[in-house]
Amino acid sequence: MRLSRYFIPVSKDVPSDATIASHKLMLRTGMVRQNGAGIYSWLPLGFRVLKKIEQIVREEMDRAGAIEMLMPTLQQADLWRESGRYDDYGEEMLRITDRHDRDMLYGPTNEEMITDIFRSFVKSYKALPVNLYHQQWKFRDEIRPRFGIMRGREFLMKDAYSFALSEDAARVSYQKMFAAYLNTFDRMGITAIPMQADPGPIGGDLSHEFLILADSGESEVYCDKAVLDVPAPGADFDFDDLNALEAEMSKRTQYYAATEEKHDEAAFNAIPADRQVKARGIEVGHIFYFGTKYSDPMKAEVQTKEGDLVTIHGGSYGVGVSRCVGAIIEASHDENGIIWPDEVAPFGAGIISMKPDANDVAAVADEAYAKLLAAGKDPLYDETSDRAGPKFARMELIGLPWQITVGPRGVKSGTVELKRRATGEREDLSLESAINKVMGT
Amino acid sequence: MRLSRYFIPVSKDVPSDATIASHKLMLRTGMVRQNGAGIYSWLPLGFRVLKKIEQIVREEMDRAGAIEMLMPTLQQADLWRESGRYDDYGEEMLRITDRHDRDMLYGPTNEEMITDIFRSFVKSYKALPVNLYHQQWKFRDEIRPRFGIMRGREFLMKDAYSFALSEDAARVSYQKMFAAYLNTFDRMGITAIPMQADPGPIGGDLSHEFLILADSGESEVYCDKAVLDVPAPGADFDFDDLNALEAEMSKRTQYYAATEEKHDEAAFNAIPADRQVKARGIEVGHIFYFGTKYSDPMKAEVQTKEGDLVTIHGGSYGVGVSRCVGAIIEASHDENGIIWPDEVAPFGAGIISMKPDANDVAAVADEAYAKLLAAGKDPLYDETSDRAGPKFARMELIGLPWQITVGPRGVKSGTVELKRRATGEREDLSLESAINKVMGT
Repeated sequence: MRLSRYFIPVSKDVPSDATIASHKLMLRTGMVRQNGAGIYSWLPLGFRVLKKIEQIVREEMDRAGAIEMLMPTLQQADLWRESGRYDDYGEEMLRITDRHDRDMLYGPTNEEMITDIFRSFVKSYKALPVNLYHQQWKFRDEIRPRFGIMRGREFLMKDAYSFALSEDAARVSYQKMFAAYLNTFDRMGITAIPMQADPGPIGGDLSHEFLILADSGESEVYCDKAVLDVPAPGADFDFDDLNALEAEMSKRTQYYAATEEKHDEAAFNAIPADRQVKARGIEVGHIFYFGTKYSDPMKAEVQTKEGDLVTIHGGSYGVGVSRCVGAIIEASHDENGIIWPDEVAPFGAGIISMKPDANDVAAVADEAYAKLLAAGKDPLYDETSDRAGPKFARMELIGLPWQITVGPRGVKSGTVELKRRATGEREDLSLESAINKVMGT
Repeated sequence: MRLSRYFIPVSKDVPSDATIASHKLMLRTGMVRQNGAGIYSWLPLGFRVLKKIEQIVREEMDRAGAIEMLMPTLQQADLWRESGRYDDYGEEMLRITDRHDRDMLYGPTNEEMITDIFRSFVKSYKALPVNLYHQQWKFRDEIRPRFGIMRGREFLMKDAYSFALSEDAARVSYQKMFAAYLNTFDRMGITAIPMQADPGPIGGDLSHEFLILADSGESEVYCDKAVLDVPAPGADFDFDDLNALEAEMSKRTQYYAATEEKHDEAAFNAIPADRQVKARGIEVGHIFYFGTKYSDPMKAEVQTKEGDLVTIHGGSYGVGVSRCVGAIIEASHDENGIIWPDEVAPFGAGIISMKPDANDVAAVADEAYAKLLAAGKDPLYDETSDRAGPKFARMELIGLPWQITVGPRGVKSGTVELKRRATGEREDLSLESAINKVMGT
């Protein structure tokens, strides 16, 4: 993308209510614009990151056998009356009345709707297990929206819903999501720790929150340092291997890791002192087995092989897709701006032409742009006539993984400057070597 | 995708309010499920088509230089009070009050919001022209939603907004969208005719509706048959070539084509009788130059090179993304089901294994699946134990462009049956030849 044809409204002024790094940086880089309390537009740069995260989530859900679909944002109140949650949900539910005076709501989550879809189509055990997911905008009417898109009112969430014949089968569905989440966050360049969370009225051990450690986190979390070093299952993981699924869970649950609500001080103190981690965490995902909580009142039943009717066992699995954008920035920035991990960067590399009106400089910069474009590295090409200082500062601020600077002196000696944003390391290289290095990531 | 692991709830029963082909077929193929009046879930098969269309729209917008972003679904009423449309819009606007009693609404369109974003960031002529677009769910509280997703209340729309310094510059922005729309619909496999439409209070010739001809269309349209034969600009079209842009418009506007509102009986009668087309049309896009309609009241001004303040000239450009799914089906189906054009088909090919429990049949069908998958053709593999009749009927119904049938007799003689859905043509071929033929499209 040529910057002169793009729209990145960077800004020095940040409103005083922006107190955490990700909120400030997303405003300064022109990634988002606030349109109302807790409601944001995703400007072009922010939109690109959001789409990358959505795509990673999609690929990892698909790999784990979940099936993508899309439910609407608005729902009928009647469905929520069936489950009993319409009155329970409280003021965070945005209630709406249409022109025919029908009670509707802006979906904060979709357990009722997906259960309704399931029961209307699935009558036999043969279709089970099944896991359906979507990535759709949700609304929760937070009383005090804050931290930018991290705690907004309109937010993008991936929510998956599994249906199984028995508690045992539901456990397998749960374990698949557990493993898929580890891969998902790993690909985003963040370490999300699964922590025991409050399982709600159902009980059992099947409720985990996935949190990343960050000073700006809203929850206090406790864990054994060792859990941070367990590698993600990886791209070759076999989701049909039941032993491997169980192992991925136990590899982690052998170490202590809990949110405040589930914290057990004695168990925590039993960890060797140098491995005790008490920190703040940002929740980026939550997985949950809820048994027959919705299928019971909503009569989601299927016929078994033997002809009996059984109520299905369900689980739901959320990823805060838009929140992940903020969480990644919280985990990866410095005083000059954002440091994007490679897989989620809005552009793979930045090219700065120091003298766009000098033919020799323009020729080399154009070549760098054409080659990275052709190689699918999606470069951002700053060929504007802005001064050098602001150009460098802007490129640092938006934090693309690589910067290639083409200047008159380098061009005379046949080199460009390649800089890795994360380490600050700079090298003078031939254009060819610089491109090869960028392509290696 | 293996059908046994997928979710396509085909159904024979269609409610009596489904009167048009696309509505019936989308329900019968399990593409969508109604969740309320004019509100639908996109089940996995329908979702895939929707995403393909969204991607075509994206690629063609990007090619024409428009920049993608994403605005929220909910908006503040105050913005609409500024433009004067809050009171004018009437009952189709879904008005919402949040927990703090603030007036909000579910966006039916985004002229106000994008003008607000523009004015808050752009102060200089240097950033112009610019065209920002998004693909987001909209809501219009239709009094009588009908025709399934074709006239729903919650619908997906691509809306682009251009900003230019002058009427002349705005005309270029308009022409780019005109050409981009021709390519967009062409890639979807439909012939959308740009027709003169009511330009509203601004006047001028810069308002076109894009319609496809279909008996179920809601508007009466009139055109010269010759306009149907003008080819789309194509993938190599240069959007920076002003003469070419003008030519793409005049190539079409030389022929009569108008909606009912703009119909001129005398001009129509002047067309040679064998070229007079009077038909019904489905609107799939609308492009519109509106000058300073929003920038005037909302004070969207920029400084010119000479230091003067000028009010910007705007246009908006819509594509009914979700409606296109229905429009394509209206244009392309037969008594057995849908006939998907190649570029928007939910899967590139279907493979039917006639005897999944016979090793030799399974081996050939598995090979067909693996090869098409590796080649990126995204096959749907029916390896279920259903009977042959229902398997064929289902594959016809969902209408993938190609069907490869692997049966015991063919396997013995080293062949599979390849069928083209659109023509019904069948051939017995070696698996290799069949795959080559499928890959050729």
